[in-house]
Amino acid sequence: MVTQVEVDHPYIPRDLKLPGYVPVFLSQSTIVGIYGAASLLVVSFMWILSGRVRKISQVDRLLMCWWIFTGLTHMVLEGYFVFSPEFYKEKTPHFLAEVWKEYSKGDSRYAGRDSAVVAVEGITAVLEGPTCLLAVYAIAMKKSYNHILQVAISLGQLYGTAVYFVTSLLDGDNFAASAYYYNAYFIFANGWWILIPTIIVIRSWKKICSACQVQEQKKAKAR
Amino acid sequence: MVTQVEVDHPYIPRDLKLPGYVPVFLSQSTIVGIYGAASLLVVSFMWILSGRVRKISQVDRLLMCWWIFTGLTHMVLEGYFVFSPEFYKEKTPHFLAEVWKEYSKGDSRYAGRDSAVVAVEGITAVLEGPTCLLAVYAIAMKKSYNHILQVAISLGQLYGTAVYFVTSLLDGDNFAASAYYYNAYFIFANGWWILIPTIIVIRSWKKICSACQVQEQKKAKAR
Repeated sequence: MVTQVEVDHPYIPRDLKLPGYVPVFLSQSTIVGIYGAASLLVVSFMWILSGRVRKISQVDRLLMCWWIFTGLTHMVLEGYFVFSPEFYKEKTPHFLAEVWKEYSKGDSRYAGRDSAVVAVEGITAVLEGPTCLLAVYAIAMKKSYNHILQVAISLGQLYGTAVYFVTSLLDGDNFAASAYYYNAYFIFANGWWILIPTIIVIRSWKKICSACQVQEQKKAKAR
Repeated sequence: MVTQVEVDHPYIPRDLKLPGYVPVFLSQSTIVGIYGAASLLVVSFMWILSGRVRKISQVDRLLMCWWIFTGLTHMVLEGYFVFSPEFYKEKTPHFLAEVWKEYSKGDSRYAGRDSAVVAVEGITAVLEGPTCLLAVYAIAMKKSYNHILQVAISLGQLYGTAVYFVTSLLDGDNFAASAYYYNAYFIFANGWWILIPTIIVIRSWKKICSACQVQEQKKAKAR
């Protein structure tokens, strides 16, 4: 059997088959710029809004900004990816399709629809996304579950990122179009979802332990 | 190129290539029996030992039994799988190799070394396994981090199981040698790691919320 390898796409590995691929329309700076501007708008809106919450700390306001940003990223960007297996065939400069056409230069498993990537993105978009919005509410309303919720989502983000990186390594770590895209998209962009969740887990973990310790001491006294 | 499909193994899909495969030596009942007996021994030991802990509830004793059982399963059984890519070539009735030769009848991705399975099992064996033993200690010593730790590991187990099932579905859900093995190994055996972690998350989540609520009320009074 003669297999014709189609290589009309910019991704690695070169033998990845993407019949019907339509090249990206927008420039990298336009795509990143729109995402950045939209995120800045959302974060600014949340910063102002959170300022109206009574007796709230600056840290909690920052956290509300993070949760709205990461929640909308999960639901809109990653949600689109999960339910659009043919985004790379998109014939118009549809922004969300452009994002994933561009990001696939850093990790072609997105265009190639690798199962591990789709599974992790599915869990992230469908379960974690809405839960991030609940975290915004929980922090603002000082709900008793706000810290455990923040730990739960952050650990989910860390677990997802771990599966994402480990499966790439196990499959040969050869999915980036160049070292630039590997570092900028695969490492740097995802790195934030290791760094920030780690900080949040440590902070909320300590708060929970201190609350549990107080209660344990009260119980011990009551005995 | 003529590809000779080797089908000297009992797994599905039939075109899975496992050169050097050596059939399982022990019967299913022997393998399950040894795992069951060893687990019963460990659990009995923990039940007796936990009885010596001062002012401990029956529920906490049961939890200590669960954590030692699941921790050792993660470290010994799953740890062996993670670091033994060629277990299916094992020429002696090595118990751990037998376990995975047998379990692969329910999910051939183990013998086939699917990346998502190896990634999840790696995280489970290396990170979660030892943390389960820490949970045994944390419950016995009534550490303030015992509930948050139990939530963290249980959510990890749930996330791992979710990735495990979702990737199987995405890849066609055709990895079991028969409906019997599909239901007994893939669904039933793994089901416990959905059921029990879910119960633990709900229980410890409530305890954490109640502790946080008490502290929040104290803070509110102090203002």
